[in-house]
Amino acid sequence: VSVTAPAGFRAAGVTAGLKASGRADLAMLVGDPGTVAAGLFTTNRVAAAPVRLSRARLATGAARAVVVNSGQANAATGPRGDEDALACADAAAAAAGLTPPELLACSTGVIGEPLHLDRISAALPSLASALSPTGGAAFAEAIMTTDTVAKSTVVAGPDGVCVGGAAKGVGMISPNLATMLAFLTTDARVDAATLDRLAREVVGPRVDALTVDGCTSTNDTVLLFASGAGAPVAADDLAPALAAATDDLVAQLIADGEGATHVVLVDVEGAPDIGTARRVAKAVADSPLVKTAAFGEDPNPGRILQAVGSSGADVDADAIDVWIGDVAVATAGVIPPAYFDAASPLHAAAATAMKEHEIVLRVRLGDGPGRSRAVGCDLSYDYVRINGEYTT
Amino acid sequence: VSVTAPAGFRAAGVTAGLKASGRADLAMLVGDPGTVAAGLFTTNRVAAAPVRLSRARLATGAARAVVVNSGQANAATGPRGDEDALACADAAAAAAGLTPPELLACSTGVIGEPLHLDRISAALPSLASALSPTGGAAFAEAIMTTDTVAKSTVVAGPDGVCVGGAAKGVGMISPNLATMLAFLTTDARVDAATLDRLAREVVGPRVDALTVDGCTSTNDTVLLFASGAGAPVAADDLAPALAAATDDLVAQLIADGEGATHVVLVDVEGAPDIGTARRVAKAVADSPLVKTAAFGEDPNPGRILQAVGSSGADVDADAIDVWIGDVAVATAGVIPPAYFDAASPLHAAAATAMKEHEIVLRVRLGDGPGRSRAVGCDLSYDYVRINGEYTT
Repeated sequence: VSVTAPAGFRAAGVTAGLKASGRADLAMLVGDPGTVAAGLFTTNRVAAAPVRLSRARLATGAARAVVVNSGQANAATGPRGDEDALACADAAAAAAGLTPPELLACSTGVIGEPLHLDRISAALPSLASALSPTGGAAFAEAIMTTDTVAKSTVVAGPDGVCVGGAAKGVGMISPNLATMLAFLTTDARVDAATLDRLAREVVGPRVDALTVDGCTSTNDTVLLFASGAGAPVAADDLAPALAAATDDLVAQLIADGEGATHVVLVDVEGAPDIGTARRVAKAVADSPLVKTAAFGEDPNPGRILQAVGSSGADVDADAIDVWIGDVAVATAGVIPPAYFDAASPLHAAAATAMKEHEIVLRVRLGDGPGRSRAVGCDLSYDYVRINGEYTT
Repeated sequence: VSVTAPAGFRAAGVTAGLKASGRADLAMLVGDPGTVAAGLFTTNRVAAAPVRLSRARLATGAARAVVVNSGQANAATGPRGDEDALACADAAAAAAGLTPPELLACSTGVIGEPLHLDRISAALPSLASALSPTGGAAFAEAIMTTDTVAKSTVVAGPDGVCVGGAAKGVGMISPNLATMLAFLTTDARVDAATLDRLAREVVGPRVDALTVDGCTSTNDTVLLFASGAGAPVAADDLAPALAAATDDLVAQLIADGEGATHVVLVDVEGAPDIGTARRVAKAVADSPLVKTAAFGEDPNPGRILQAVGSSGADVDADAIDVWIGDVAVATAGVIPPAYFDAASPLHAAAATAMKEHEIVLRVRLGDGPGRSRAVGCDLSYDYVRINGEYTT
């Protein structure tokens, strides 16, 4: 069950009254002593107070737990926000019997609104006493904002160890509520440096591939914890389970993307390097014209080429091949003229491929080794409704 | 009227049958001998064939006319597209009594579909014979694609000269139809080098400030022609009229942005340099979360700060001030806590400012000299309808 599937972890989630909805909104995850941690944080220059606190504490090497509140993001809150984040984390550490550096903090919710410290303090004793090796599901529930379903994963690894995870997020930043948060745990015995490398090399690229609306939240955080309660495992042996767990969470996040009716996978290959491949894949997946075409199930190679060409990457327009599903809709930069015939079987085949729930767009830029996948979704009326009709 | 308001120009627009709608779709503008030209072209690496042709011909210094077709973009058409663009331009030059290097070409419409050369050739004689000093309105009509209104301008300059203009564009690239095209004319006597400098320094930044959906078309082109029929005018003296004419066309373009219900002006000031100011202004204007907030008339400073922080610019989060209209909604990176009180007069004032047709968002990054304005619009249900329900 979620983050407590691996041995050596306890978790809980309770209702502190931070959300108007009255749903659970305060969560904690604690690894047994000896647990090591790694993390990835938002690149947004307007980083929330808990992001700054967690980044600093992670550097001390002591972290083995995290407290998470949903309801308020504690971003754009200035020095008071830093004080509130510290007060919340210190009170939570005391309630759970942890030293302050052992505890990280994440927040998600309305940007600008101060934390309700009094309500958090009042709920911390019940949160601490609810910590349990079966609390993963409650943890995954309590971190949600506008998510329609809780997102969790468990993947078996080598030598009896496993990887567990929980995540939340609907837009990269959602209706004034914010953030993608993801938490991955394992009982594999790996050191902190190895976990950090796995975070950057295995988890990071998979999470970075995700795009709902191209917006990077002030609070995005991914934390990894390894309890060491199980067997020692080499990094390369743990990587596949970690990759599978991350992929599973990413798939759940995109499926719950705001208003999404289609998942759009953009595979770029043949780029001179992986950076170029990533840039082009993200540009196609983020293009509002590609996203609305996906919503309308319109097989539109012109929009894909337009997005590739304006990605900012150094591409050769006369070397671009494009497929919709397995239908070649542009070759060497040219859309076949027959594509525009009213009765074109090529167009009909591409139209069929656009009706899949999971639409696959493939772009080949040349003969280079660089390849990357972006995981996106369509742009629907509901995205506009969710983000436009919501008023603070 | 439009591009023929200044002395020394003739224009026309006719129906060649390139569009299913049967509306006018072939246009020409010709300056008298002695006319000089300058141009700005799309940065999209997938540039249309007519863009490549016009860029090369402009470099010869002979250009004094342009032929424009709407209906087909002649982009992603490969070597055949280059041959078609050349054949079309040569036939048009012959019909109008011009040498080939004197004539530039622009196309806008469906990406990938080949030009209907036969229909264009058949219509060229009537186009050439319709050329007239009062043909500006017909020209402005014939360059439209999904535009709901024709866009033209006339601004008086010094010493009896004037600046005229016509433009089209609804998305930066619209439903499979493409492109912003703009044409500016003046009878001021300026040399080609001066006109080129005015294009880059006065017209370029104003056009670049425009963003409907952040998508750069394969066909975007801005052309300037100076006939010299009027008085000699110094560059600095012509600049204000040229600026006013460009601003007028930009305002008309954004007002006709796909599905737009609000114009969103983003003014960034206090940046270390103009490049940073432009990057931040564009990021705010392009943010789907800011655009949906504008549609929902939601005064949401968190989304503005989120967009500033993720713009990629090197900003100091603790130095950002934000205004919605003239209401200060964030100071030194902090949204006032009172903003979240149910009965906050600050929030009520910002909400009122969001109800304006023209919403003004102001962002101050610090004490630097860099300032820039982005001109955007909201993201509405109709943008999704226009781009999602349209099927090729």
